[in-house]
Amino acid sequence: MLRRYTRPITTPAAARAVRDYNRPFVSLLSDFGARDPSAAICKAVVLSIAPDALVVDISHEVEKFQVRDGALLLWCAVPYMPIGAHVAVVDPGVGTERLPIAIETARGDILVGPDNGILGPAAERLGGIEWAHVLENPEYRLPVISSSFHGRDLFAPAAAHMALGVPIHVLGPGIDAAELVQLEWPVPEIRDSEFLTAVIYVDTFGNVKLAGEPSDMLAAVGPVEYGQALEVRLNGRGALAAAFWADTFGRVPIGELLVYEDSYGRLCLAENQGSAAARLGLEEGSAVSIGRA
Amino acid sequence: MLRRYTRPITTPAAARAVRDYNRPFVSLLSDFGARDPSAAICKAVVLSIAPDALVVDISHEVEKFQVRDGALLLWCAVPYMPIGAHVAVVDPGVGTERLPIAIETARGDILVGPDNGILGPAAERLGGIEWAHVLENPEYRLPVISSSFHGRDLFAPAAAHMALGVPIHVLGPGIDAAELVQLEWPVPEIRDSEFLTAVIYVDTFGNVKLAGEPSDMLAAVGPVEYGQALEVRLNGRGALAAAFWADTFGRVPIGELLVYEDSYGRLCLAENQGSAAARLGLEEGSAVSIGRA
Amino acid sequence: MLRRYTRPITTPAAARAVRDYNRPFVSLLSDFGARDPSAAICKAVVLSIAPDALVVDISHEVEKFQVRDGALLLWCAVPYMPIGAHVAVVDPGVGTERLPIAIETARGDILVGPDNGILGPAAERLGGIEWAHVLENPEYRLPVISSSFHGRDLFAPAAAHMALGVPIHVLGPGIDAAELVQLEWPVPEIRDSEFLTAVIYVDTFGNVKLAGEPSDMLAAVGPVEYGQALEVRLNGRGALAAAFWADTFGRVPIGELLVYEDSYGRLCLAENQGSAAARLGLEEGSAVSIGRA
Repeated sequence: MLRRYTRPITTPAAARAVRDYNRPFVSLLSDFGARDPSAAICKAVVLSIAPDALVVDISHEVEKFQVRDGALLLWCAVPYMPIGAHVAVVDPGVGTERLPIAIETARGDILVGPDNGILGPAAERLGGIEWAHVLENPEYRLPVISSSFHGRDLFAPAAAHMALGVPIHVLGPGIDAAELVQLEWPVPEIRDSEFLTAVIYVDTFGNVKLAGEPSDMLAAVGPVEYGQALEVRLNGRGALAAAFWADTFGRVPIGELLVYEDSYGRLCLAENQGSAAARLGLEEGSAVSIGRA
Repeated sequence: MLRRYTRPITTPAAARAVRDYNRPFVSLLSDFGARDPSAAICKAVVLSIAPDALVVDISHEVEKFQVRDGALLLWCAVPYMPIGAHVAVVDPGVGTERLPIAIETARGDILVGPDNGILGPAAERLGGIEWAHVLENPEYRLPVISSSFHGRDLFAPAAAHMALGVPIHVLGPGIDAAELVQLEWPVPEIRDSEFLTAVIYVDTFGNVKLAGEPSDMLAAVGPVEYGQALEVRLNGRGALAAAFWADTFGRVPIGELLVYEDSYGRLCLAENQGSAAARLGLEEGSAVSIGRA
Repeated sequence: MLRRYTRPITTPAAARAVRDYNRPFVSLLSDFGARDPSAAICKAVVLSIAPDALVVDISHEVEKFQVRDGALLLWCAVPYMPIGAHVAVVDPGVGTERLPIAIETARGDILVGPDNGILGPAAERLGGIEWAHVLENPEYRLPVISSSFHGRDLFAPAAAHMALGVPIHVLGPGIDAAELVQLEWPVPEIRDSEFLTAVIYVDTFGNVKLAGEPSDMLAAVGPVEYGQALEVRLNGRGALAAAFWADTFGRVPIGELLVYEDSYGRLCLAENQGSAAARLGLEEGSAVSIGRA
């Protein structure tokens, strides 16, 4: 049920992206955690190079080593970010032979991070990859590179310089986009009018993002109206729950489950004012199927 | 023991509030959590509209769906914020018929959020409500409004535009301040020289904010000196603890309880270098009474 | 095994520190927690005084009351920060007779916080103490000083004014650097070619910082090559584990332990893509010894 990432959802709802050449923009995403100073150090390195830069932290609480979570959160965020350089560091392979890269997208952004797939979905969502380069030029790194903190020594400086206007090809040799590492994502299947999918992310509310798009689910189960019940089955455990197809939480009573299209256009399962994940024991990778009640 | 919120505590200790017309100011408060990108997306939406805005995150870790916690934290923070637009989104009713509103205060701030009471205490603390308007004008929203993320699609854009100087009445029709939803807060009682109150917030140190003001408590129990012991009773469970009336933590030995006026002028119960909440098993709503030892 | 802090590790890898006189810089570090509004209030107080200041949050999730953790994280961060005023508030003695101080360093930074040792290691890392002054001048405080929130009322305003150029001696009387409180840190010992040390910090990955420097450990156990196994003994419990001396995580298989020099030049113990602290049951103060396998 796994294949390579293919098709991101584009959303027309995004804010009008702006590029302000007087104000370089850099965003940061990582699994560094809020307690340690790592994220602030990356920000300070950007500001040492580009003192006028506007720096926004997307999240530093990505679950440790979960590259796919990082890729998904970056995918959610970038359409709303001003055009700029976006650094994403969930990097279990730091210090190994995995390449440090930068990607220039059709929208004009630069994505910076390890070549482990974390940048791919965001790149597609920003119009696709125009150029990809390996970060090799020592001029755009800190003077000494540690083997365990490339966010600080390599990615943050590269992003700051590119946000200031250094062209991506100056950073190092080009690399064919087809050679970049791609993540694998669960792919839903349809069987007997049932939509077989899997959990790809549980947010801090306990809302559960599922693989596949709402239109795919509707194609499987057939037409349903808002407020109509669906049956949610947790594969491998046989448990059942009723969930309403709904446009928003308030459509169902407090404590009831709903299946809905979330604000990024994704298929989600939630409990109104509760945690669907806690209630159903769901975590990333859990198999879920949706059918008519 | 519950009634509508009435009287906020004003504090003369606040920083001199400034309005810098060259630098629009926006603050953000929510229960979105630090792990998900929602808060950063709201910030980026503000910056897409108002690239020169200064944006401060008050907190995005308000306990999920706890509107009253959000209202209290906003009340604590706004006197120290520069004059600007303050967005508060703890919004269990998102997507339902609850109104999206903006309030202009006597100090000159704009408060933006759902009409569920979260803005009321802050509005009173900023001098009271001058105008209240419903956010209806599609010019000041994102092009497509989701049914589950009004922080991004509706509140952040409205705040950014008003921080830039768009007058509040342009955003939508006026609404009578008396019609706005108001929160209910516990109200202390006095019985036999005992001050009967309740926990309204437990902070990250485990310090416990109680309903009522220090002067109310002192009126109930009679004159006490700093360092004098009080008796704290946990209603309904009968447990007793000694706590010293104190001006600060260091007044009592490490590990001892104190009752004090906190830095916002509120009545609090704490343990010096420990968690009073954990020690006494207190949480929001717990009934507490204070009397002479 | 405890003595006063003496020798910080200097690292040539730091970003080039910059001072931009058009853009005052202030960093903030505390144990206030991300949920409460305290950290944002300190930031807003800085911005009320210095509206053009750039403010970076190093961390507000320092473990409650752990002054030494705060000192270590500040030590990690300051070399990468632009030259400016750095506020550090882990302050169990707030409101007692402990002094509020500011330190000017050789690099040109101002460190601001309680005189409990939290500023010392950072001061040494920034070239040492040039001047130390007590914060007494009421002109550079908020109008009313609470007894429990000096971060807001005293330290943030002082830092903002000094970031704007107010000379340190204007804030209050000088104090001899030798009179400042210094923290005690574990000091490693060598016994029978074994390096006896202790845990001084566990980061959010579960990586464990140990007292002492990598060169000290190597001097104890004798020459080892990357990839060579060392024996880690948890003193007092006798448990043993094999850990490889390595330059980076990827040098050892996933799930294996490594001993390495971290990106700040410190001696560390980690598990590749896991938590060494959880696996070995380590916490601050745990005794650890390292010897040849």
